[in-house]
Amino acid sequence: MKDGTSALQLIGLRGIPSIAAGDDIARIIVDAAAHNAVPLDDGDVLLVAQKIVSRAAGLLVNPADLTPRDEARDLAVKTGKPADVVEAILQESRGVIAHGPNVLITEHVSGCVMANAGLDQSNLPGGVREGAMLALPRDPDGAARDLFVRLGAITGKKVAVVICDSWGRPFRMGTVGFALGVAGMPALVDLRGNEDLNGRPLQASVEALADGLAAAANLVMGQGAEGVPAVIARGLRFPAGDGAAADLLRPIGEDLFR
Amino acid sequence: MKDGTSALQLIGLRGIPSIAAGDDIARIIVDAAAHNAVPLDDGDVLLVAQKIVSRAAGLLVNPADLTPRDEARDLAVKTGKPADVVEAILQESRGVIAHGPNVLITEHVSGCVMANAGLDQSNLPGGVREGAMLALPRDPDGAARDLFVRLGAITGKKVAVVICDSWGRPFRMGTVGFALGVAGMPALVDLRGNEDLNGRPLQASVEALADGLAAAANLVMGQGAEGVPAVIARGLRFPAGDGAAADLLRPIGEDLFR
Repeated sequence: MKDGTSALQLIGLRGIPSIAAGDDIARIIVDAAAHNAVPLDDGDVLLVAQKIVSRAAGLLVNPADLTPRDEARDLAVKTGKPADVVEAILQESRGVIAHGPNVLITEHVSGCVMANAGLDQSNLPGGVREGAMLALPRDPDGAARDLFVRLGAITGKKVAVVICDSWGRPFRMGTVGFALGVAGMPALVDLRGNEDLNGRPLQASVEALADGLAAAANLVMGQGAEGVPAVIARGLRFPAGDGAAADLLRPIGEDLFR
Repeated sequence: MKDGTSALQLIGLRGIPSIAAGDDIARIIVDAAAHNAVPLDDGDVLLVAQKIVSRAAGLLVNPADLTPRDEARDLAVKTGKPADVVEAILQESRGVIAHGPNVLITEHVSGCVMANAGLDQSNLPGGVREGAMLALPRDPDGAARDLFVRLGAITGKKVAVVICDSWGRPFRMGTVGFALGVAGMPALVDLRGNEDLNGRPLQASVEALADGLAAAANLVMGQGAEGVPAVIARGLRFPAGDGAAADLLRPIGEDLFR
């Protein structure tokens, strides 16, 4: 490859152990990067799977411990989901957007619109009570910032952080990665001041940089037995600035779909 | 980086000239890859910007030549868009999904739900009449297949093709890349038979592989004066199979948002 060719590398870190509550994932990832001979460096973006952030924070929910409110019982009938699971979803949500067979679309407390408030029975740590679910961080930008600060303290480098999860979408089949939490980099990049190749002003040119990166990382993370919960993005050029995944939330008044 | 580390490279091809109607973009891209010292190889995925596919195919629309139907005049009042531009959008669409200030969300004839049927005044070739717009391929999977076959004929290698565009989304700010056309690889990868790290069956695990790749490539393509209209994805592992972007269209009956 010649100099001047622009290349983005997405490097999956292997050998990260199963994460338990209280683990220092910044230290574990720094060690894994060194062990893989790709030590973290200035300008890297570290993409971390939500599941290990949630596991390290011990974010378990036990629906069987909850008493469903009336709305939960009603939505349980409408969706076919257990009422205690619906109650758990409502406790992680600001409001219900839509529902269908075995799915409830809500606005998670973080502001993200997604299925089932991201509660997941797969990828739980071993030894957890049957029926428990792993919850998303309630303040994912704060979780990203904590990780960004800790990585800086360990390495002395400026390594931006994106906490990634995957979701389904209106109109499209299949899941893609998205940015749940962001720190140390812009989440949105505004290109509207630029011109196109022929000098015409660019249209629709605010890029969801952090979502694009999360979608890219999701390809390397895979899922299941070969899961890679941390990916280094190296070689990406992005403007300075300190954004947040909250910047990616479309205000309700500007949304044609709710 | 150690062997066994999984890495995906996204290599932007520089030096691709401005594309005009009739150009052989397969030949131009093969030459650019060789010139950049990254000749196309088996297992690569070539990600191509829709704009050069459309320019090579001469897909220009001149709204001023069109006579707006009644529905176009009505939607022009509701959106604030010129009636002839609305007529052009309707001619590229199967139906209207939603509208708002200066935006019309339709189902493009390819089945993709997007703003303004993808009609774009930026990135037109030089010398085009003022007001002309570049249209999407009406059969983007067919366009991807033609490019896939032509790349194979030139190189003797199996190089999958994804025609990429970018769009806005419900609930989220900013644009991300998506797969408009696919050939030579699966667009969706079904992981539902797999188990998670603890042996529980995976939930919601059909990955929109081609959309994820397009989102990744969009980060390298950028927009405007530094635009890179072709990106090689190298190092991605994906199952054999021959999919299409049409596989990514959610059937209306399964869609909670229309």
